[in-house]
Amino acid sequence: MPERLGPARERPLVARLAIIGFGLIGSSIARAVKRLNLAGAIIAVDHDEAVLERVRELALAEETTIDPAAGVREADLIILCIPVGAYGAVAQAMRNGLKEGAIVSDVGSVKSSVITQVQPHLPSGVHFVPAHPVAGTEHSGPDAGFATLFHNRWCILTPPEGTQEGAVATVKAFWAAMGANVEIMTAQHHDLVLAITSHVPHLIAYNIVGTAADLETVTQSEVIKFSAGGFRDFTRIAASDPTMWRDVFLHNKEAVLEMLGRFNEDLASLQRAIRWGDGETLFNLFTRTRAIRRGIISVGQETPEPDFGRRREE
Amino acid sequence: MPERLGPARERPLVARLAIIGFGLIGSSIARAVKRLNLAGAIIAVDHDEAVLERVRELALAEETTIDPAAGVREADLIILCIPVGAYGAVAQAMRNGLKEGAIVSDVGSVKSSVITQVQPHLPSGVHFVPAHPVAGTEHSGPDAGFATLFHNRWCILTPPEGTQEGAVATVKAFWAAMGANVEIMTAQHHDLVLAITSHVPHLIAYNIVGTAADLETVTQSEVIKFSAGGFRDFTRIAASDPTMWRDVFLHNKEAVLEMLGRFNEDLASLQRAIRWGDGETLFNLFTRTRAIRRGIISVGQETPEPDFGRRREE
Repeated sequence: MPERLGPARERPLVARLAIIGFGLIGSSIARAVKRLNLAGAIIAVDHDEAVLERVRELALAEETTIDPAAGVREADLIILCIPVGAYGAVAQAMRNGLKEGAIVSDVGSVKSSVITQVQPHLPSGVHFVPAHPVAGTEHSGPDAGFATLFHNRWCILTPPEGTQEGAVATVKAFWAAMGANVEIMTAQHHDLVLAITSHVPHLIAYNIVGTAADLETVTQSEVIKFSAGGFRDFTRIAASDPTMWRDVFLHNKEAVLEMLGRFNEDLASLQRAIRWGDGETLFNLFTRTRAIRRGIISVGQETPEPDFGRRREE
Repeated sequence: MPERLGPARERPLVARLAIIGFGLIGSSIARAVKRLNLAGAIIAVDHDEAVLERVRELALAEETTIDPAAGVREADLIILCIPVGAYGAVAQAMRNGLKEGAIVSDVGSVKSSVITQVQPHLPSGVHFVPAHPVAGTEHSGPDAGFATLFHNRWCILTPPEGTQEGAVATVKAFWAAMGANVEIMTAQHHDLVLAITSHVPHLIAYNIVGTAADLETVTQSEVIKFSAGGFRDFTRIAASDPTMWRDVFLHNKEAVLEMLGRFNEDLASLQRAIRWGDGETLFNLFTRTRAIRRGIISVGQETPEPDFGRRREE
């Protein structure tokens, strides 16, 4: 079912929105905000002048600047859409521009580290509502974004204890307007959940693509030609942005290592089953896993079409 | 680009084609054969009477039988489309029906074991040309098949030394007619190549879905809701047919354990990089893996659309 956004609002939700970092996510937010009239003005901030030039060509913002402090001045809502390793430096760079009552949010894939990095830099009277829209593609940059990216996806908010309720409500309304389902949990729990649903899957995808590339007994050309047996699915995830993902692993170390430890234990048990010809263990697992996919399809987080709906013609 | 098959042949390639096993692959062959007029008649053989009933309803074959020996009688080409663990028993069951000059082929995902299982049962004068079309979806059964499944995919033939050239040429022409690119290699090399491009990817997909299902700290409902972060891609592969895949692992044990050993070594090294905060190792791998996907897209084995072209609307 194609995904649709609702009608545009008559009045914007916030007057001035600063988006810091204009890659896939930042540019998707800008597109959705324009389509839905969620902000009076968008201020684009990026450290790369070429990206800002592209933002102007695509008319994704009313103003553009390379300077975070200038960009956030008078902004009501500021959303960091940058690799999580850069948060501390950017928070420091923008702090003097933040106005009283401004809300700072983000889209980072890890949340405990983000809070630790940003909070010390925020003046009192500025609200911090960390957010993570669980959505994306393997493409990067301002041209890769699209307005429906967050539609029917989940956006997790992890406001630290004591965060002003009004600020949380604004960020919640902002994501709901873009079609996302909003859930609130602690940063610590978020990091554990995402370690298994996103971070470890990315790690093992990157890993097997690397393993395949390094073999001597099978050529790279063979790996590429015969990839339709399953391997090519992994290469999509392993084509995700390297800087973003390096930072995710460095900033969610404990939860990733914990989940990876369980993955390894389970894999060792499958390896043993193969070595000893224990077909029952294999069959039982392979039957059980089908139910999880059915669950994902039934809640609308996946297409029921075979092969992800990759095109074919009868 | 939607995939198209060529025009139907004026005269069939073989007079009588017996397809043993009418799941996704067997029924896809039948559909392509009918569309392209590759056989004078199709005889459907399956151990499940309900499947044969469905084959008759779908008009996928001229004759149906539960008896392999009866099914292969007078057949010029016989294709086994059954789990590789069943080959020995079925080869034995059909041997008395095979006519002089018949060609036996198959579609199994492992090849050394298949040769070991089948060859002792074949009378002299019957040719054996093992084949493996590297194509499929996560769906199973006679309704899941479609005529273009093999179009622009590779089909690997692994004829044992001394196989009659004419028989190899017939099987090659048969797959080429269905739109496949045909490559010939040894069974041993095939099993190594597929271990890395298909078998180990399936194993780790099944494994991570199992790991996620068994956690106590993250609920199954959370795994399902937040699966769009990467996990859901793995569940597609982990929804593949359990019997087929159990047999693949039991019958390609050595190559799978060899490739799994390398995967584990590489993963241990990534794990260490995360623990010690070695961002450079992570970044270098994550950059290298993008090139492999570009290669797969450039040879037409994958869609260039983001997110596998899962539907969205701007």
